[in-house]
Amino acid sequence: MPSVTLYHWEPNANSGKPMLALMEKGVAFESHYLDLLNFDQHQSDYLAINPQGTIPAMRHGDRVLTESTAIMEYVDEAFAGPRLMPEDPRDRWRVRWWMKLMDQWLGPSFSMIGWKVFVGPAVASRDPAVLKAAIERIPLPERRIAWRKAIYGEFGAEELEESQRRVALGIRMLEQELQRRPWLASHEYSLADINGFNLAYALPLAQPALSNDELTPNILRWLRAI
Amino acid sequence: MPSVTLYHWEPNANSGKPMLALMEKGVAFESHYLDLLNFDQHQSDYLAINPQGTIPAMRHGDRVLTESTAIMEYVDEAFAGPRLMPEDPRDRWRVRWWMKLMDQWLGPSFSMIGWKVFVGPAVASRDPAVLKAAIERIPLPERRIAWRKAIYGEFGAEELEESQRRVALGIRMLEQELQRRPWLASHEYSLADINGFNLAYALPLAQPALSNDELTPNILRWLRAI
Repeated sequence: MPSVTLYHWEPNANSGKPMLALMEKGVAFESHYLDLLNFDQHQSDYLAINPQGTIPAMRHGDRVLTESTAIMEYVDEAFAGPRLMPEDPRDRWRVRWWMKLMDQWLGPSFSMIGWKVFVGPAVASRDPAVLKAAIERIPLPERRIAWRKAIYGEFGAEELEESQRRVALGIRMLEQELQRRPWLASHEYSLADINGFNLAYALPLAQPALSNDELTPNILRWLRAI
Repeated sequence: MPSVTLYHWEPNANSGKPMLALMEKGVAFESHYLDLLNFDQHQSDYLAINPQGTIPAMRHGDRVLTESTAIMEYVDEAFAGPRLMPEDPRDRWRVRWWMKLMDQWLGPSFSMIGWKVFVGPAVASRDPAVLKAAIERIPLPERRIAWRKAIYGEFGAEELEESQRRVALGIRMLEQELQRRPWLASHEYSLADINGFNLAYALPLAQPALSNDELTPNILRWLRAI
């Protein structure tokens, strides 16, 4: 069987999605850690694997796969082990509806706040010349802009406010959906839960006023179950 | 068999995706036309179907489905007819990689230019009070902002420049990929082609300097084949 290597940062957000999917399927994989805060993902050895310099990537034999949600669907389809997608096409639609909402609408807002609060400050004290060179090496212009804003504290008031609005609304939507059924998108655990967990597991720490046992009991129950 | 109704605007962009998928599968459906330029999608009878007021939506029996790409996967999975997803998990991954790129990164840029050039001017001459009321009725704040920018010509120079960059780069990426194989994501026609067609079919008219028989012969071949 071809070997599997996962190129990842910490097991959260995008990196945690294929990692948890592989573990749920019982697939052994080699872990290749990249320190995002050290800009490892923009070094030439990783760019040879993923020219876009985004994390995660997965190698399966001679196949190189990128984009965490598409990798998760691949993991579910290419390996034996427990099914991570429901059978009913309507439930499968609901998994994809939630994954789209999280990847495109909610995730970037969670991420902007995380970058402002954690990633930016974590690297901002480094040698300015080193940081400048690191930013210039980033292959995707839109990622270059995001890093620059995080490092120099340049996120605008309007975009931060919009992110806060989405986080608050997203938490209410998650709580409402998890009140209806045990898992996010169907009566079975699925890729939507893996995706959601990696987005939301830090909520009780990061947004204690919006997500706690009293306000969002179903989110807390769901996070603990995963 | 439960009946199918598609709520759609013109058969392009998002509306064209489930429409073409249904036609490829040979599924008969009732067409419910909504005039986007008349804000039909924000009227209460449609909001009763899709509270977000986005187009398209599909009703299948008592199921209501939204989000065009997730609807396409549902159509492929819920109905008989030709398969619109390849069998190999790697090819399926490539379909989803392309759909993500188009839905999240390329589509909004195509769309911004289309809204600036066509949608905004098409409605801007209406009674200002009617327009103001129409904007205020839009349920999603982010759509309200997009409409306001289109109607009052408020897209910023920076965001338009970024959209132009993505359109030019996206065209080069499509041409390169279609040079490798007959269809976008595998050796078979798939949902990626349906998605791509609805994004790109107007390119030779809208971006004649970037997409034409000489510069992008493979894009033109592919559009004609679809």
